[in-house]
Formats: sequence, C-alpha cells, structure tokens
Amino acid sequence: MTTLKQLNTPQQNALGATILAWAEQLGTFSEDQHGLTCTYMTATHRETAMQLMQWMRAAGMHAHIDAVGNVVGRFLSTDPQARTLITGSHYDTVRNGGKYDGRQGILTAIAVVRHMNDKGIALPFHLEVIAFAEAEGVRFQSTFLGSSAVIGQFDPSLLDLSDRDGIVLRDVLAEAGQDLSTIDAIARDPSDLLGYVELHLEQGPVLLDKDLPVGIVTSIAGSRRFLVEFTGVASHAGTTPMALRKDAATAAAEVLLYVEQRCNEDQASSLVGTAGQLQVPNGSVNVVPGACHFSLDIRAASDAARDAAVGDILAKIETVYLSRNIEVTIEPIVEAGCAPCAPWLMAQLSAAVERAGVTPFQLASGAGHDAMLMSRVTDVAMLFTRCGRDSSDVENLSADDADVAARVLLDFLRHFKPKPARAATRGARASSPVEAPTGEYTE
Amino acid sequence: MTTLKQLNTPQQNALGATILAWAEQLGTFSEDQHGLTCTYMTATHRETAMQLMQWMRAAGMHAHIDAVGNVVGRFLSTDPQARTLITGSHYDTVRNGGKYDGRQGILTAIAVVRHMNDKGIALPFHLEVIAFAEAEGVRFQSTFLGSSAVIGQFDPSLLDLSDRDGIVLRDVLAEAGQDLSTIDAIARDPSDLLGYVELHLEQGPVLLDKDLPVGIVTSIAGSRRFLVEFTGVASHAGTTPMALRKDAATAAAEVLLYVEQRCNEDQASSLVGTAGQLQVPNGSVNVVPGACHFSLDIRAASDAARDAAVGDILAKIETVYLSRNIEVTIEPIVEAGCAPCAPWLMAQLSAAVERAGVTPFQLASGAGHDAMLMSRVTDVAMLFTRCGRDSSDVENLSADDADVAARVLLDFLRHFKPKPARAATRGARASSPVEAPTGEYTE
Repeated sequence: MTTLKQLNTPQQNALGATILAWAEQLGTFSEDQHGLTCTYMTATHRETAMQLMQWMRAAGMHAHIDAVGNVVGRFLSTDPQARTLITGSHYDTVRNGGKYDGRQGILTAIAVVRHMNDKGIALPFHLEVIAFAEAEGVRFQSTFLGSSAVIGQFDPSLLDLSDRDGIVLRDVLAEAGQDLSTIDAIARDPSDLLGYVELHLEQGPVLLDKDLPVGIVTSIAGSRRFLVEFTGVASHAGTTPMALRKDAATAAAEVLLYVEQRCNEDQASSLVGTAGQLQVPNGSVNVVPGACHFSLDIRAASDAARDAAVGDILAKIETVYLSRNIEVTIEPIVEAGCAPCAPWLMAQLSAAVERAGVTPFQLASGAGHDAMLMSRVTDVAMLFTRCGRDSSDVENLSADDADVAARVLLDFLRHFKPKPARAATRGARASSPVEAPTGEYTE
Repeated sequence: MTTLKQLNTPQQNALGATILAWAEQLGTFSEDQHGLTCTYMTATHRETAMQLMQWMRAAGMHAHIDAVGNVVGRFLSTDPQARTLITGSHYDTVRNGGKYDGRQGILTAIAVVRHMNDKGIALPFHLEVIAFAEAEGVRFQSTFLGSSAVIGQFDPSLLDLSDRDGIVLRDVLAEAGQDLSTIDAIARDPSDLLGYVELHLEQGPVLLDKDLPVGIVTSIAGSRRFLVEFTGVASHAGTTPMALRKDAATAAAEVLLYVEQRCNEDQASSLVGTAGQLQVPNGSVNVVPGACHFSLDIRAASDAARDAAVGDILAKIETVYLSRNIEVTIEPIVEAGCAPCAPWLMAQLSAAVERAGVTPFQLASGAGHDAMLMSRVTDVAMLFTRCGRDSSDVENLSADDADVAARVLLDFLRHFKPKPARAATRGARASSPVEAPTGEYTE
C-alpha cells in the first residue's frame, strides 16, 4: 500500500487546495467580526447560500435554493430514469464556529463534481449535493431544520419560533422571499433514493490519535441526557462530623466516577458518559454542600449499549442517594436513538479508502449529523476526516487530509453500486415511527 | 444518676428561662428588620452593649465597656489578692444570626452571677464576665477583635480597615467615644489569670445526635484550607472517547471521595474534610469539563492528625493529576493551629456535668471561638450546649438545655480549684510564637 506522503504531491492535492480556498472564502461571510458565525436566514447566511449555488452551477450542476434555504445542486445522469444518490452537509455554523464544520462535506462534493464535469466523467445515477441550511439550531433552536424538510418531516410549528430579538421565523422566511407553501414539496420520494453519504470533520481526537486522514463511521450515536440534583443538608464544615453529614457533592462525585468507570468498561460500544455541568450552588468554603447539580450525557454506537449504561447509572444514583440518606431529582432532557450506518455503503466507502492508500478504520460518531435524519428515509454512510486544531483552538483541516477525503469520495462515486436488490428497500423505513429532532443536538 | 426530666421542673429551670428571655430581648436590637444582625460598632451593637452592662450591674457586678467595645463585668472576691477566672463569649452576630450564638455564654454567666449575688454566695477568686465585642468579622473582616485586645494582641492596623460603605474603623470608634489610647491597657496580665471557660452552642449536630444537653470540648480544631483548580481539556462529549479525555471534573470527584474516605478513617481525631465549593466554570451538557475548581477545608482536634490528613490529600491530588495527565494549582488560603483545652479544667467541668445528672461526653469544636485566642495566655475549657433548629432553620436553644448549662457553670464555679501549682503556669505560653487570627474563621 502506498503511503500518504507519496500520494500527496502538490499536483495531487489540487482538490484539497480548492476545498480549503473555498472554505476560506465562505469564512469571510460572518455575522461576527472576530469569528465565523453564520446562523439561519441572516444576511450572512443568504450570502453564503448564493455563493454555494454559484459554485455548484460553475461545477456543472443544476442548482437552486429551496423554500427553507437548502442549496441543492444536481449532477444529472444521462439516464433520466436513474435514481438519486445524495451527499452533502450543513452550511450554518455555531457562534465562532470553524470554517470546515459541515462545509467540508459540501465543498468536497462540489469540487468532486467540478472535477468529473471537467474530465467528462458521467455517472449512472443522479448525484445530488445538498447544502443543508440549518443543523446547529443556534438562532431558532431548530436543529436539523434543513434535512427535516428533505425527508418530509418539517415541523410547521417551527415557523412560530422567535430568535432572541423576538423575530419570528415565519416572517424571516417571508422577507427572504421564500415560498412557505412549497416546503412540503421539498420532501424526497424515498423510492427514488439510492442512499445518502456525508463527509464531515470528525470533530474528535480519534483519527488524530490513530494518525489516519479519514475513517468510516459505523453509527451516529444517540444520546440520553439528564439533569440530576442531589439535595443533602448544608451544615457547618467544622462542627458536623463525617458520620452525620449529608453531603450532596460527595454523592455527586460518587456518581461521576461510576459513570467514568462504566463507560471505560464498554469502549467496544463507543460508550461515552459526561457530566459537563457540575455545581454546588452558592457553595462556601466552610459549609458542607447541601445541594449539588450536574448534567449527564450518555451516548453509544448502539441504543442497547447506551440504555444498558443508563440503566446501570440510574441504579447507581439510587444506591447513592439511599445509602447517603439524601434526596435526588432526575430530569431526562434528551432521548435520541442512534442511527446505524448501512453496511453495504460502509463496505463501498472502505474499499475506496483502501484504494486511496489508507487503512480503513471504523469509528462511531458521537455527535449528531444530518445523516441521522436522512437515515429515516434512506441508507446512510459517513466518512470522517481528521480534525486538527488551529492556534485559536478552532477545528482545522489540512489540505492533504481534505484531498484524501475528496479522492475517496470521487473514487466511491465512480465505483458506486446500488444496494443489491435482494434486500428490502431501506426507504420502507420512512413510515416507521421515528423520534423528532430533539433540539439539543449540536455537532 | 437522676434523669434530666426529673431535674427540669418549672422551678428548676428558672435560670434557663431567664437566659432565654434575655436572649429574646437582645434579639430585638437588630440592624435588620427580618433577622438578627448585630455587627461591630453599629448603633445596634452599642445598644446591645449598654443592655449587657446594665444586666451585669443589676446582677451585682462592677461593669464597664472597654476601648474596643468589650463589656466587662467583675464579680469580686472578698480577697482583694485573689486571681481572676474569666468566662464569656461574643455578642456580635453574623447576618441573620441566631439569638444564642455567643450570647448564651454571656447571659448564662450573668444569670449565674445574679443567682450567687441573690443567694449571698461568694467565690474565693474574682470572676470576670466578658462580652466580647467582635468575633465574627462581618463588618470589618476583623475576627476575634475583642478577645485579641484582652490577650494584648490587638493589631493596630485593624483601625485602618473600612466597612463596605468605606467607613474606617478608627473613625467609628472615635465617633462612639472610645479612647483608642487605652486599647493596650485592655491586655490582661497572664499571671493574674486562673483560666478561661466559655459556654457556647455546639452549632453542630453531635449533642443532638447523642441526646445530651451539654458536652465538654476537648480542643478547638485548627483548620487548613485550600483552593484547588484542575485544568484538563474541554472537548466534545460525543466525539471524545473515554480513553482520550482529560476530564477535570472526574479528577475532582476522585479527590472529593478520597477526602471523605480519609476523614472517615480517623474519626477518633474528629477529623473532618469538606469541599464546600465545587464548580465546572461555564460547563455545558455536551462538553467534557476542561476545568473544575473546588475548595478544601480540613480540621481535626490535633494539628498532627490534621496535617497527616492534609499530607495524604495533597499526595492524592498529585496522584490524580499525574495519572490523568492534567494540571493542578493548589492555593493554601488558611492555616490555623488548634487550641487544646486544659485537661485539669475539663476534669472540673466533667465533674460538674456529672453532678448535674448528665453523662459527661467529650467532643472537639470544629468551629473557632474566643477561647482559641484566650488559650494563648491562659488555660481554657469550653462547655457546649445542644443546638436545635427553629422553624426558620436558625440555631435554637431550649430553656431546659440552657438551664442545665447554667447549673453546670454555677456548680463548676462553686467547686472550682485553681490549677495545681506543681505544673508550670500556663501563662508562660503567652510569649511563645502563635499564629495570628486568620480572618477566615467564623463560628
């Protein structure tokens, strides 16, 4: 197998260089002078969409902006009866976000289409590149609004949401000239779809740690989140003997260490557990904590592994509050099922990775992605790209890694074979009950 | 041994009823309409001092208010050459404080003197009742100002302190007509002192738990306090595998549980350890904590036991930060030595407790008291009284318990024998190096 260094000659990372240059250019459109912020349906956001549409058209695609702001480019097959493979990601950002989060997947697809168009490469299927308008939920707390419309599960009540300035989403869309009556028509027909493949920055340390430019996602982890409040008895730190204490903070400490230990024991399931918020409210140096609040976020590559861990953790909390004779309230705030990637798509991605000279490596996605929603109507796969950090600790992407990912996508598309007909079509799952977007996911 | 119930007939708890009535009356003088607040040298504070002086005089004492606001009553022996035994406590309060904190010790002494005066009981020594003006440090952060003057260790730089309205202590005292030039003269001659005995609410749950009205203090625990900051790496709760985390909160949890376990193992030393403050600054549900701050307060009845525990805890912190590959800063903020009570005084207190029909029980004081300062110039002992809670969760005292404590004091005084001459005089320790009040102790 050729090594990466040999492959990445200047000429050969032309795709990567293009992707980085485009991301740089898009990054200059921001609501914020000091960082990159592009939230739903602001002037910045619409300027970004227009730029993406222009690049799509220049790359040889039919492109338009749909009623919710998704930028959709179609690279048509010569066979008008062909079905459609979708790729893409989101172009909105968090506040002070990174230039590559979401956008890498969009820009890579455009660069690859431009390359195919330039070289006269045709595909036996329609390729659709979707730049989803909204995934982060920053402005309207409406996570994955863009992909929800594409799968026909747009929630009309979102239109009544207000941003922090009291501006209502319905008015924002109307003012932008979006025709709300056409939102329903955005929904794709699942039977027309061959699948969905998303390229995305890993946004985690695994590929960096493994020294690999890309990896194949096995599953997008679901998450269960809780707010836990222990209530003990605040008392004097000097005059209350250990045996007579009802210390809410040491109770919390016991749970935190259990969560850590329990998740360490099931790394095969990509199980992770986090207490991101932890506080003794109004704590004083000389007062035994009478209260301690913390959050829990539990994720795994499978719902079964995650729910088993949650069950054990809740049992531990019960043991702790009973044995310490204190009180507890547990508020579940999020429950989202995980979205497994389709093995047949993963296999074709793996083959492309291997042909690019990279050892295929599988990992779970701990963060949510548009692929999570797309999985409700079609088979999905994801390719993660190694994520570095720039000097400001913002997520970074090297031209070499961007290039490897682009070449993997190009190669994957050129070798793509639809799912063997013997299995039932995945689109049938569209009608099965699914959980609504939680509004809590960020990538 | 007679039981408590038999002793506490209405007639017999007359002392207790008097003490509670006086405390009630003093409690009506407050800076605050909704609770009891009496901070140093306010109008409320001076009104309280005047009332105490009147009660002392009515009880048969020579009484005056000294240059720092201590109210001093002397119940003189018929022997003018007699030495002096001191009892007392503080009359200032914390904000929204209890009616009995400090004041119980003062009012009990006055009630007991009144009783002796009424009954024509004379003592073979001078008894001095001191209502210390300041122990809590609320207004000027000047804890134990009153007793520091009595032991001749008043720090003149305190006079330059300002309260939160910018009012300087020196000006406050001058305006109140206090003659600052006489502060040095407040210092007692250690060779004249027979000892110091303080009655105080326990302010802890031990006597309540043991179902005992009073207990004999063995030692006033010193305290060592630290602020600890763990610094790990904030990272995505979904995308960061357990093995690649640098979680500052689980590191803190490990330390908290160790502190609890270590202190549980040495209850014989009245060892207590508390993390009263605990926080992940700006924590988010989906972010692995990159920082966690907590406080530590470690106390024990002996400095040796406390320092051994501190050593083990600091070693544990080192193990934790090294094994987790994170960073730590540890800031020591308080170090105060403990003040052991004099066995010969404890023995006489125990005998009086036993004669009152109560099983003598010893416990350490976790909180600081004026006795801590007095121990620098004379032998000290303390009698704790059971501390309940009223409906507003403020420290409470029953008339029965107040009466038991008063009868113990009366009986102790009537049986008091000076320290056997064969031992070196305790006053010699006045010249040994001692630590300054830390300004951090509250009761």
